[in-house]
Amino acid sequence: MYLAEEAWPDLETYFENESLALVPLGSTEQHGPHLPLATDHLIAEGFATAAADRTGFLRTPTIDIGVSPHHRQFSGTMWVDAPVFRDYVESFTRNLAYHGIDRVIYVNAHGGNVEHLREVGRRLHDDEDVYAIEWMWNDSIPDLVDELFEHNGPHGGPKETALIQHLQSELVHDDRLADARDGGFPEFEASDPTHHGARTFYDAIDNTDNGVFGDQTDATAEKGERMFEEATAQLVQLCNWLDDQPFADLLPKDHV
Amino acid sequence: MYLAEEAWPDLETYFENESLALVPLGSTEQHGPHLPLATDHLIAEGFATAAADRTGFLRTPTIDIGVSPHHRQFSGTMWVDAPVFRDYVESFTRNLAYHGIDRVIYVNAHGGNVEHLREVGRRLHDDEDVYAIEWMWNDSIPDLVDELFEHNGPHGGPKETALIQHLQSELVHDDRLADARDGGFPEFEASDPTHHGARTFYDAIDNTDNGVFGDQTDATAEKGERMFEEATAQLVQLCNWLDDQPFADLLPKDHV
Amino acid sequence: MYLAEEAWPDLETYFENESLALVPLGSTEQHGPHLPLATDHLIAEGFATAAADRTGFLRTPTIDIGVSPHHRQFSGTMWVDAPVFRDYVESFTRNLAYHGIDRVIYVNAHGGNVEHLREVGRRLHDDEDVYAIEWMWNDSIPDLVDELFEHNGPHGGPKETALIQHLQSELVHDDRLADARDGGFPEFEASDPTHHGARTFYDAIDNTDNGVFGDQTDATAEKGERMFEEATAQLVQLCNWLDDQPFADLLPKDHV
Amino acid sequence: MYLAEEAWPDLETYFENESLALVPLGSTEQHGPHLPLATDHLIAEGFATAAADRTGFLRTPTIDIGVSPHHRQFSGTMWVDAPVFRDYVESFTRNLAYHGIDRVIYVNAHGGNVEHLREVGRRLHDDEDVYAIEWMWNDSIPDLVDELFEHNGPHGGPKETALIQHLQSELVHDDRLADARDGGFPEFEASDPTHHGARTFYDAIDNTDNGVFGDQTDATAEKGERMFEEATAQLVQLCNWLDDQPFADLLPKDHV
Amino acid sequence: MYLAEEAWPDLETYFENESLALVPLGSTEQHGPHLPLATDHLIAEGFATAAADRTGFLRTPTIDIGVSPHHRQFSGTMWVDAPVFRDYVESFTRNLAYHGIDRVIYVNAHGGNVEHLREVGRRLHDDEDVYAIEWMWNDSIPDLVDELFEHNGPHGGPKETALIQHLQSELVHDDRLADARDGGFPEFEASDPTHHGARTFYDAIDNTDNGVFGDQTDATAEKGERMFEEATAQLVQLCNWLDDQPFADLLPKDHV
Amino acid sequence: MYLAEEAWPDLETYFENESLALVPLGSTEQHGPHLPLATDHLIAEGFATAAADRTGFLRTPTIDIGVSPHHRQFSGTMWVDAPVFRDYVESFTRNLAYHGIDRVIYVNAHGGNVEHLREVGRRLHDDEDVYAIEWMWNDSIPDLVDELFEHNGPHGGPKETALIQHLQSELVHDDRLADARDGGFPEFEASDPTHHGARTFYDAIDNTDNGVFGDQTDATAEKGERMFEEATAQLVQLCNWLDDQPFADLLPKDHV
Repeated sequence: MYLAEEAWPDLETYFENESLALVPLGSTEQHGPHLPLATDHLIAEGFATAAADRTGFLRTPTIDIGVSPHHRQFSGTMWVDAPVFRDYVESFTRNLAYHGIDRVIYVNAHGGNVEHLREVGRRLHDDEDVYAIEWMWNDSIPDLVDELFEHNGPHGGPKETALIQHLQSELVHDDRLADARDGGFPEFEASDPTHHGARTFYDAIDNTDNGVFGDQTDATAEKGERMFEEATAQLVQLCNWLDDQPFADLLPKDHV
Repeated sequence: MYLAEEAWPDLETYFENESLALVPLGSTEQHGPHLPLATDHLIAEGFATAAADRTGFLRTPTIDIGVSPHHRQFSGTMWVDAPVFRDYVESFTRNLAYHGIDRVIYVNAHGGNVEHLREVGRRLHDDEDVYAIEWMWNDSIPDLVDELFEHNGPHGGPKETALIQHLQSELVHDDRLADARDGGFPEFEASDPTHHGARTFYDAIDNTDNGVFGDQTDATAEKGERMFEEATAQLVQLCNWLDDQPFADLLPKDHV
Repeated sequence: MYLAEEAWPDLETYFENESLALVPLGSTEQHGPHLPLATDHLIAEGFATAAADRTGFLRTPTIDIGVSPHHRQFSGTMWVDAPVFRDYVESFTRNLAYHGIDRVIYVNAHGGNVEHLREVGRRLHDDEDVYAIEWMWNDSIPDLVDELFEHNGPHGGPKETALIQHLQSELVHDDRLADARDGGFPEFEASDPTHHGARTFYDAIDNTDNGVFGDQTDATAEKGERMFEEATAQLVQLCNWLDDQPFADLLPKDHV
Repeated sequence: MYLAEEAWPDLETYFENESLALVPLGSTEQHGPHLPLATDHLIAEGFATAAADRTGFLRTPTIDIGVSPHHRQFSGTMWVDAPVFRDYVESFTRNLAYHGIDRVIYVNAHGGNVEHLREVGRRLHDDEDVYAIEWMWNDSIPDLVDELFEHNGPHGGPKETALIQHLQSELVHDDRLADARDGGFPEFEASDPTHHGARTFYDAIDNTDNGVFGDQTDATAEKGERMFEEATAQLVQLCNWLDDQPFADLLPKDHV
Repeated sequence: MYLAEEAWPDLETYFENESLALVPLGSTEQHGPHLPLATDHLIAEGFATAAADRTGFLRTPTIDIGVSPHHRQFSGTMWVDAPVFRDYVESFTRNLAYHGIDRVIYVNAHGGNVEHLREVGRRLHDDEDVYAIEWMWNDSIPDLVDELFEHNGPHGGPKETALIQHLQSELVHDDRLADARDGGFPEFEASDPTHHGARTFYDAIDNTDNGVFGDQTDATAEKGERMFEEATAQLVQLCNWLDDQPFADLLPKDHV
Repeated sequence: MYLAEEAWPDLETYFENESLALVPLGSTEQHGPHLPLATDHLIAEGFATAAADRTGFLRTPTIDIGVSPHHRQFSGTMWVDAPVFRDYVESFTRNLAYHGIDRVIYVNAHGGNVEHLREVGRRLHDDEDVYAIEWMWNDSIPDLVDELFEHNGPHGGPKETALIQHLQSELVHDDRLADARDGGFPEFEASDPTHHGARTFYDAIDNTDNGVFGDQTDATAEKGERMFEEATAQLVQLCNWLDDQPFADLLPKDHV
């Protein structure tokens, strides 16, 4: 069920009987010459919608803008500063608790949000208000992702390309895939951009001229669909697992 | 042009030549038994999209969640606290300036956001970073709104109903319009809910049992379309007016 | 009773028996060539003092400086930034609660404070600590204000002029009333300073050269006295109404 | 000149020619059974007014509420939390700079404000915006204060009593002076309320039952007048000294 | 016992049986040409270690960096801004309470930390979480300090010199003592660096060219040892006194 | 050179000629039954000291307390909340810049600090004030670490054990190594403590009963020394590399 499309009386039963919500979060940031800036929030929304449909759990609207200052040199990248992002997510999550939600899955599709969502999750967890966890699709199917593509990459690579080809193919510039690869940093994952153990770069542009990593040319909508289905299945299982936990088991353990 | 659907190289020309952006903002909050919680953000997105299409100016993704604690007693209402909302809007607006945007129209459809958007606008204005102003559709066509409906109301009334009937009719429960009226506070605008000049209520529920004000039964998609077209025309003119101003004229005036 | 003139043992009985306090708030900002910068805080203090005298309720010292950045271009205007003002009012109001006060009337005479006082009131209300409401004299007698003057105005106009003529006539430059009118924006209330529904100005100086709106020339001390008496009567009634409410009735209503 | 009583055009000359302002700050807190809660802010206002009158420098409205949580157990004490107080003073001081003020004397009469005013002064000084210093009357005439009274005390003692007897005698309960002494801690200054070098108390009530220290019985309006005149003379000299400094000499010195 | 050198299981008994901790705090700031920047944190650590050894109470690691902007003009001085310092100390003190600590002695050796530690102590005290007090060695033995040296001084003078000669003599440049005196402000304590009662300086360099006050030439390790032993004895007594108090007696007293 | 042991005049040459500083940061948190809570800060200090000695660059005092709430259930763990830690590190780093430092290496030995140091580094980098990067010893010698031990672990495992055996062997309880292994989670790195891609735990105790991961029994001081030497060599190279960069090359790249 999608919270925003319902009238309030039609949500009463849900809040009486359930206590779990799915919150999709992404970013609006450059994803190379071939993918839309919406990439991450479309993916997050896609997974949250599918899991909500298949489980009956509630999903909220998508948070489209995330923590993306490291992509700012590329036109159109939007972002909010990290402390503000954390406070924003904390605020609406706490407020969901007013309706009886005590467990939340942040269906996240932007790597730059991960640490911030976990920090917010810790605040809520330590205060024993809400148990909120971050889920990112590719972490749920690492073997499949590795198997499908020659050269993955942390950003704008074939795995994201394939997902958008599956979810919203009209937004992919298929004719720019080779350019995306050639103008970017195709073998990033095999490389080591650190110096003597220190990460010395702060921005994507420090390592890639066009904003992307990996080789996009073996991405297909079919691969995207396969990843989407398998990761959705994982998310569905996570929903059910989380729903099954007694709330007491989700609270911080006592001092030894 | 919709920022999020573009790949970054396709935005370069815009930022080189233009300095205006439209940012839609709404809320996710109860709108009575007949309208979806999405009402305000759908309306904001509708106007921003239309104005962007007709003018060629850029619109960003929509901020779906606003300042709505006063509707929290009704199931599903989401909100962020006011200081967090202001900081969030300030952060992404300042960051838009990194790409060269120096004037922003907040295309707003939630009354509860108005004062906060103006406060953010003031911060940006006084710092001489960005000139950002708030626009709310019904303020641009007050006479038409008055003319079309018998009993308007500040929330969930016929004007919002008609707009959603026009924009996304499948989300309106047309069979609940009379109930919406009868269970709410139909003649709110003629009433005075204050005591001796003081506004003594804090929440919608203090004045209405089902969350709405006004008489929804004379709302129609045709009236919605008429309002939509006339207000969009106003927004288009505002875009053009704002685009025409020299930036120096938008800065704070000097000390007398 | 005026809190600041009492020795602490003389306040013990009050706090044992009563739980209401009046807090006057104004501004120190330009009010045109004819009125002192103190105008708003003198008015607020005048009403709070009169209501305290007539009801026996306690009034605190007056907060003289408010949220007035929009008048800064005129010499001498003082202000604090909005977030700081809110925190300041919140802090001393919460601390009044330590003595047993659970209901507060902000006797306000500066329009620029209204939204901030309501935001503070909401924080206190939602936390169920103190029920605090904002009262502004002219909102309690709108018909009389309209009846008395030809051209009102939101700032420095005849209604404020008449009140200061009544309260502290030596601070009014009666010989400058025509100049005030002619150098300002006499027919502001009939005009529309917005563009296509958007408020495009941020500062008073954007609309008025000398800082005032309205036609001051029909202001008299007699009209001031009449407004003062009628609005004080309203405030007295508000005090009594508020005092009569059981605290439980002032708390937020439950979730539907 | 008192800023708040002027109309803005009458301040223009001042800001064109001068850059110094006097800001009185006190507290609203218990001062024993014999003195009003207003004691500190009346004293601050008295000195600032006299110095402004004698020098022609500008004084602003008085900040009546300060940092007084240590007196909260006594009825009526008002306070704001320390971080909020600092931000409030910082905000209006920075804003005074907008009119050209670059040096400020905080005419302070509450010991609990001292460290906070110095911290604000440091912020402004280190930013090279405004040179603001704290002045407290009794620090300017320590020998006279010692000479006049047998048993002084940091709070509510004979020196404050004498000043209010001089400034506003109707607010002093002369018939309670002996009680004030006997119910308080008359010989505080000779005692040592610390333990092994540590200040172990947090509140006035930890050391005094009625809120005061010292022996009030030798206070007289004549002594008050003498202190007032001598300390005012010191403040006048401080104004003139500060006015004489080139602004560059008031800035932080360079790194060695 | 020193917390950091223990493995966690070896601390369990302590937290079961005791509720007091010693926290040493100093600064890293210039102390003239003859003393190391570590001076204050070495002294704090020395006292906390000795008192922990002699009483069996727990001491934590030392906070080496304090509030020292007033020494910044001299090379190497490190500092954190005052609001950040307060929040840092508050955060770790609250967290100590998680293990059962409800009383803390801040063993402080930097005058610039005093007011901030007391402000943090007040927050914790008023919230009734932890009773934390500040102790500074020289305040516990004022007579001895006065007796031992001709010309003390608030910073870098003979008393600090003697302590470091005792605690870590290899860090004292004994050959620079006369230079330290001659290049500094030897008779500071007898002088009055204020103007008409106002402290007009913000930085050490405003009063001393080499950063120190006092005459260091009569400092000796023997005097240092004597002060160290006597002040440690005071601290030991303070520990025992504090340990003996029922927690209820350490809480804020009730409203009168 | 160690900043804190120098007198200020002896640092002048350094700041005139150099612009790099090493800042060691660790934690004070449980490291199992065999290692001291100081483990991380001892390691950080060890590396920073060695690199400073071998290169001549300056090191500051060590920050002993970090972001460790996830270890709080084990006795003695100290921590500061993440936002406070970030502000603290930011504040002293900005202040180091006052002396001319424009590049900083955070010599970090606590995994829980990494993301926060990078966030602070970004703030400083984006503001173009200081280029600060985080270095963690084990990231500089991943192959060696893998080669030396059978079962590593992220916390309290053989690699940290070996380092403390090398650096401060008297603090290691060698007789508890087998217990540490058996009571903890020896094969953590091969396991997957997530659910369907989501990290569902917040605290160490969720996965380990005694606080450690890995098999400590093959740790030796010799292996510790070897790692120490090799990682120090990496850090020395990093210092030299960083020192060689023109500051302009360390600034954010321009917008594409």
